[in-house]
Amino acid sequence: MTPAEQTEILVEGTAEVETRGELEARIASKGRLSVKFGIDPTGSELHLGHALILHKMQQYVEIGHSVTLLIGDFTARIGDPTGRNEARPPLSVEQIEANMRTYREQAGRVLDLDRVEIAYNSQWLAPLTLHDMIGLMSQTTVAQMLSRNDFAERYAEGTPISLHEFLYPVVQAYDSVAMRCDVELGGTDQYFNFLLAREYQKHAGQPPQICMTLPILEGTDGVVRMGKSRGNYVALTEPAAEQFGKLMRLPDEMIVRYALLAAFRPASDVDALAAGLADGTLAPMDEKKRVAEQIVARYHGIEEARRARERFEATVQRRELPSEMPELFAGEARRLSDVLRLAGFAASRREAERLVLGGGVKLDGIPVSDANMAWAGLEPVVLSVGARRFVRVMPGVPSAPPSR
Amino acid sequence: MTPAEQTEILVEGTAEVETRGELEARIASKGRLSVKFGIDPTGSELHLGHALILHKMQQYVEIGHSVTLLIGDFTARIGDPTGRNEARPPLSVEQIEANMRTYREQAGRVLDLDRVEIAYNSQWLAPLTLHDMIGLMSQTTVAQMLSRNDFAERYAEGTPISLHEFLYPVVQAYDSVAMRCDVELGGTDQYFNFLLAREYQKHAGQPPQICMTLPILEGTDGVVRMGKSRGNYVALTEPAAEQFGKLMRLPDEMIVRYALLAAFRPASDVDALAAGLADGTLAPMDEKKRVAEQIVARYHGIEEARRARERFEATVQRRELPSEMPELFAGEARRLSDVLRLAGFAASRREAERLVLGGGVKLDGIPVSDANMAWAGLEPVVLSVGARRFVRVMPGVPSAPPSR
Repeated sequence: MTPAEQTEILVEGTAEVETRGELEARIASKGRLSVKFGIDPTGSELHLGHALILHKMQQYVEIGHSVTLLIGDFTARIGDPTGRNEARPPLSVEQIEANMRTYREQAGRVLDLDRVEIAYNSQWLAPLTLHDMIGLMSQTTVAQMLSRNDFAERYAEGTPISLHEFLYPVVQAYDSVAMRCDVELGGTDQYFNFLLAREYQKHAGQPPQICMTLPILEGTDGVVRMGKSRGNYVALTEPAAEQFGKLMRLPDEMIVRYALLAAFRPASDVDALAAGLADGTLAPMDEKKRVAEQIVARYHGIEEARRARERFEATVQRRELPSEMPELFAGEARRLSDVLRLAGFAASRREAERLVLGGGVKLDGIPVSDANMAWAGLEPVVLSVGARRFVRVMPGVPSAPPSR
Repeated sequence: MTPAEQTEILVEGTAEVETRGELEARIASKGRLSVKFGIDPTGSELHLGHALILHKMQQYVEIGHSVTLLIGDFTARIGDPTGRNEARPPLSVEQIEANMRTYREQAGRVLDLDRVEIAYNSQWLAPLTLHDMIGLMSQTTVAQMLSRNDFAERYAEGTPISLHEFLYPVVQAYDSVAMRCDVELGGTDQYFNFLLAREYQKHAGQPPQICMTLPILEGTDGVVRMGKSRGNYVALTEPAAEQFGKLMRLPDEMIVRYALLAAFRPASDVDALAAGLADGTLAPMDEKKRVAEQIVARYHGIEEARRARERFEATVQRRELPSEMPELFAGEARRLSDVLRLAGFAASRREAERLVLGGGVKLDGIPVSDANMAWAGLEPVVLSVGARRFVRVMPGVPSAPPSR
């Protein structure tokens, strides 16, 4: 592939590229680029939001570039020294190794890890001395740091910024120097840090890295960033049926975005999809199923994805369940009648019993006969009354404040 | 001496003490305190402004406390990594040693160096790693740093603050932790750093140091801080006659301040002096000579100080020169007549020649006979015309903008 053809593929679906011209020129002059993606070894469950970046890495791998997964073990081992951020406890070397095994299992569904280098930044960060740090820190200013969005907001609000937090962008920039990076990949929230690395590389006499950020994917609610704590995520290792079911809950207006950023359809194809949905020549339900099947196929293969689709059509759709419906958390409900009242389908236990006796109450499409049946509620289940009233009953209580 | 008596002496002449109560209590509980004074080994010429602190150290020494002169060799060896501050070139170990010999020679005139420990902070700073720095920096916030006067001003003005500059207060605070300081001494400009050290010591489980700052002494112009570059200083190693002459140029309103901060008279004595000058029972000229003699005696002994005074009276005062007179920089004047015109005593070379022929022009009290005499102008000299017009002609040009 020519440098121009490679660049065309590589910039597809990105948020910012600093700069496209440099990327093409660097490919032309150097051939095989050194590409970095840094992660915190915190053992998180990977979801479609992560897959976006892993997919871009895989594109680099397939073209033949040298891709390194940089594990930020150095700062993970320190954690948050102030203890204020409970999400950052210090991790032991063993915990980091265990988390990385989990990570590899998950990332391996998108990325050919045999063709990816793994590096640990403690290799060059652990030996740094105060003398080295003075030299590195002198290359940037306080005002520059405070211009980073999150720091600017916290400073303006009076939320304390511990001084060591200024070290992390510096250290991340130094990673790029130590690795002689040509390209750094990450989410848009990393853009400031990526640009800082360019300054450090210039200071070190290296050509500055090309900064390539990828969009932040909205969750299946279509509102906020996908995240485990928000309950709006599709994990890479979930069973095919669950992935498919979750994707079918996507609001129609997210179909195009998921086609681009989760199904990774080529831009031309996505443009046609958007046009078809806009002028009504394509049906949202059909297209949502197509996108969902394509996404599931990436993690479970074409066969399993097809079966997930068929099962969805057979069990959920044929029973004419709407693909979007309200969710209800059952909390401490002990009986079916409690849930019917919680859902607002019955005003009293009496009324709940009447509904059940009338034969119109179903769980996942199967009629129930006893309003006093114990509610186990360990899995999500669709509760319906008649042909019009549906609610998806979730186990427990919401794990995060419900999104608006 | 009781803790209360020691405290009485030690707080005399200080600017801020954080806190006096802690000082007395620490002496009572611990007996012998660990006292630190930190200096940059930059080979500066010591003057009366420095003597203020050295004198306070000597008081601690004489009471029997453990006083350490801490040499900031670590940062001196690094210099200013940005290269923007030309006054901070990196110093070699040899340069630092040479500067310290010079320093000892000068400081030895005030301080009994045989009873003072010398420490180099590279001993504990050189081994610090990035890991250590993250821990230290996490103990303070960006907002706290930016509250320091000079940083606040520079940030408000938009003058760049390099990130590494935030390290210096942290490192200085860590010096106090490493030394387990009980008391830190310095100028009022160090107050922020001293207080920061208290936080670091508390975090390390140590009792926080007592912070003791000393006033910044005005120069002999009575206006701005004494400093070599301002030409308003009295160096500790200058000959007695020069010291005495410079001190006699002090404005009358500075007599009391110099009595306290340079002659180190006890507070009660200084109060009496202030009262006597205010109500006219003491003559400023007599008191200025007494203060000057006391100051000179500290660096050259009582005998030499008395001789300096007598010589001043014989040569300068008997010729009825005023002790205060305007100063004029001769610049590139080549002849006496040029200087007479510069001083405004003659409007033209012609008039200058007439004045000289009239016999009323004197240099240091000695009549001159030739208006065209070459002007060597290597030393300050008093040029007078008649009995009323005097000017002190200085060599060269002002080394700093003239003070108002």
